[in-house]
Amino acid sequence: MGVMFPHGQSSHSLSSTMRLSCTAVFFISIFFIFSCHALALKPQLLSRHRIKISPDHRPLSYTTFYFDQQIDHLGFLENGTFKQRYLLNDQHWHKEGGPILFYTGNEGDIAWFCNNTGFMWDVAEELGAMLVFAEHRYYGESMPFGDESYSNAKYLNYLTSEQALADFAVLIKALKGNIPGAQKSPVIAIGGSYGGMLAAWLRMKYPSAVIGALASSAPIWQFIVPCGGFYQVVTRDFTSGGVNCSSNIRRSWKAVDGISATVKGLQWLSQEFGLCSPLKSLEDVYAFKAWLQETWVNLAMVDYPYEANFLQPLPRWPVKEVCTHLQFDTGVSDKQLLHGISQAVRVYYNYSGDSPCLNTSQSATGNLGILGWFYQSCTEMVMPMCTDGINDMFEPQPWNFQAFSDECYGQFGVRPRKDWAEIVYGGGKISAHSNIIFSNGDLDPWMSGGVTKSISESLVAIMIEGGAHHLDLRYNNEYDPESVIRTRALEVQYFRKWIKQAASTL
Amino acid sequence: MGVMFPHGQSSHSLSSTMRLSCTAVFFISIFFIFSCHALALKPQLLSRHRIKISPDHRPLSYTTFYFDQQIDHLGFLENGTFKQRYLLNDQHWHKEGGPILFYTGNEGDIAWFCNNTGFMWDVAEELGAMLVFAEHRYYGESMPFGDESYSNAKYLNYLTSEQALADFAVLIKALKGNIPGAQKSPVIAIGGSYGGMLAAWLRMKYPSAVIGALASSAPIWQFIVPCGGFYQVVTRDFTSGGVNCSSNIRRSWKAVDGISATVKGLQWLSQEFGLCSPLKSLEDVYAFKAWLQETWVNLAMVDYPYEANFLQPLPRWPVKEVCTHLQFDTGVSDKQLLHGISQAVRVYYNYSGDSPCLNTSQSATGNLGILGWFYQSCTEMVMPMCTDGINDMFEPQPWNFQAFSDECYGQFGVRPRKDWAEIVYGGGKISAHSNIIFSNGDLDPWMSGGVTKSISESLVAIMIEGGAHHLDLRYNNEYDPESVIRTRALEVQYFRKWIKQAASTL
Repeated sequence: MGVMFPHGQSSHSLSSTMRLSCTAVFFISIFFIFSCHALALKPQLLSRHRIKISPDHRPLSYTTFYFDQQIDHLGFLENGTFKQRYLLNDQHWHKEGGPILFYTGNEGDIAWFCNNTGFMWDVAEELGAMLVFAEHRYYGESMPFGDESYSNAKYLNYLTSEQALADFAVLIKALKGNIPGAQKSPVIAIGGSYGGMLAAWLRMKYPSAVIGALASSAPIWQFIVPCGGFYQVVTRDFTSGGVNCSSNIRRSWKAVDGISATVKGLQWLSQEFGLCSPLKSLEDVYAFKAWLQETWVNLAMVDYPYEANFLQPLPRWPVKEVCTHLQFDTGVSDKQLLHGISQAVRVYYNYSGDSPCLNTSQSATGNLGILGWFYQSCTEMVMPMCTDGINDMFEPQPWNFQAFSDECYGQFGVRPRKDWAEIVYGGGKISAHSNIIFSNGDLDPWMSGGVTKSISESLVAIMIEGGAHHLDLRYNNEYDPESVIRTRALEVQYFRKWIKQAASTL
Repeated sequence: MGVMFPHGQSSHSLSSTMRLSCTAVFFISIFFIFSCHALALKPQLLSRHRIKISPDHRPLSYTTFYFDQQIDHLGFLENGTFKQRYLLNDQHWHKEGGPILFYTGNEGDIAWFCNNTGFMWDVAEELGAMLVFAEHRYYGESMPFGDESYSNAKYLNYLTSEQALADFAVLIKALKGNIPGAQKSPVIAIGGSYGGMLAAWLRMKYPSAVIGALASSAPIWQFIVPCGGFYQVVTRDFTSGGVNCSSNIRRSWKAVDGISATVKGLQWLSQEFGLCSPLKSLEDVYAFKAWLQETWVNLAMVDYPYEANFLQPLPRWPVKEVCTHLQFDTGVSDKQLLHGISQAVRVYYNYSGDSPCLNTSQSATGNLGILGWFYQSCTEMVMPMCTDGINDMFEPQPWNFQAFSDECYGQFGVRPRKDWAEIVYGGGKISAHSNIIFSNGDLDPWMSGGVTKSISESLVAIMIEGGAHHLDLRYNNEYDPESVIRTRALEVQYFRKWIKQAASTL
């Protein structure tokens, strides 16, 4: 379970030396047709599946291991190795055939993903499964060149999804070879967000390693879908969140521009929002607006039905909560409007009540490796994003690949290859593959690039009504909507089917 | 269509600075069970298939193109490009949907493969197909760093099958995008030997690029099968080739050792074989025996039922022809025995009658890039080979990975990774894939590592009785055994099936 940021987001979290000043470049997409298909879930699943409600922060028991991985699987000149971290729990594992649920780590600390993927812990016992959480290279502790890993383009050269998939495949072979009784254990890849993409791709590229994959909130088609979809989903969430909510946000950008045209206005804005660093320049205002935009995006991603602390500590249904502060008439003054906005963002930044001031250079958990993700975006993970201010509530910004490429070159000395991800992972033509569940929440902006319609009997899409970013991978919770309870039950049902299939071909 | 040499073969063709002195290291494999399954071919295929007999050397008409490929698809620091050569013929292509038969070039000059893959030319018209022959990087004219490509380990670092597959996938996307009418053309990968492995792997790794693959004489399991199989098939061929044939070859090694123990003996040997460079040292004798071994291997590979010039100009059924010189009683003197051997090798080296002397540093066509193949063997293409002198007719030589690795390190500064090929290409666990034909000839030593039993309805093995190395990919010939005629018809039938499938999913 993880989270990805669209291009142009989160630049504020970078250190000053590595700061991307990405201008969130977009193009207008009028013809985007939003299509999602809610798979008809079998009602009987619910009753058959015994639901255990788990506390959100129960202590997890796992052992931490470090595995020697090739720095470069795909070339032979660099023959060095590094320590890949992985976490393992086998308390419920049935030796000699019990499955291994293998979390394909994404862009962050694997312990954080481990703690936020309660689903695996919830189902381990009933499946007699071993749990393995494998860290993605260049994140957390798994640094190919130690502290120097991010110091130059040469060291960063091995930060690709292909290398990460190779790490997973090699690790799986080693686990099966080295753990007594694991040789016959079928492995199921599980991941959320970019980790979900990796889970799907691991099954697609290394079907000998994993019998199937659960790819939760995995926008594997974000490379090829119209660029406007993502922000349209964000907007829809706020439109549903309360009367006038998205309309008032749409109005707020001009209000910020108007107020910040004077020094006095800047002071007022800084005070109204309780900013730790007062706004002083046009650049500050630009960064402030980007921070606001990022806040709305993050809220849409983590719009969970219960109190949670994923990116930030938040109340249940935080978008609805935010919108209670933005229900006023769209004719109010700019200052009234921005007062509402400032109240709204505090839901995100100060739910705990202990922030003395708001810091526009922070927007989410520090467990994510944002610099690494920017590098990946600047190489193969090219996901065009745009807004038009009409179909979404944001300032119009077209997608401009060249400008993005130039930013990347200035930042990292590399240029993105816009067609590569589509070629290497098949784009829309994935029907030759099998045994992948693509689950998406209809509240999640990333569903815009997800597989939301089943492709075949074994490439199954599940749409989770009322679900935000990979809700299904979280612990069972008493406030879970029925949709996610059914989804999890269905996922387990598919796991069992794959395990049975695998047993019959041994 | 191509040919691969087992490790330890062909070292004589290397330049003195890059000469591998590989000691053809082996281990004893007693438990190897030879299992091949001749797929029941439908007899009616033969009558339905109109056979055209083609002259072996008809002039081919194609256009040569050069495509800008990334030197490194799998990393972003090296952003240079090189010119990949490909040959194209569209005289029979039905625009708007006609298929593209795409030869996945292997370790040599693509024009040579083009000329030796008559099957594609024979079926182009009936399928309305475009023919494309794509050269493999680091061979022929497709040199990533020009004349310097082989000059150091840094430049050689991009010579991997993964990079070659990426070249093919990128080229296919470009062809479909750039040739008017090709967008909907389904692509079928075709290759022989290592090219057949690439064809199969292209379908396995990039099923969005090709709807299916014909992998002829492709030993994709050579990485994981017992090491003795290859030379056992060679031996079987010579056993079948004539009375006492393999027995006399088995005796010949000791005879060579005995005779060459004296200076006079060395002189006699050099004269008897008409060697261009007389044998002078023990090292020379070792090289001489390796050259003999290589000759028998090559003969087994190209044991075609008609006169052909693939590795060398040869008579029809050359193994049988060779064995006519080795039919004498196994009790003859060493000199009589070696006289027979010398007559036998002349079948291979002097069928045309224009060789003034025999050159032990040459054994096959110069169209193959032997140095490149050695590099690939020294990195990912680790195919264990061994002989025991009991189940085969060669001197016992165990497989010794460490010695091999040390040779590679001395030669190229890289070490082979013995498990990688199995991990990346799935080893024996390939049942999740689809639409691949694995054809093998029962005379071909490489069938020892081939897929000789069908795995599923769409992973089909065809065994060609009386077939040597990728006989099915050669032009129709009046001397073709019925088995290969049926095989080609069945292959075309599968092509049609895949094309139909693809059309229904558009």
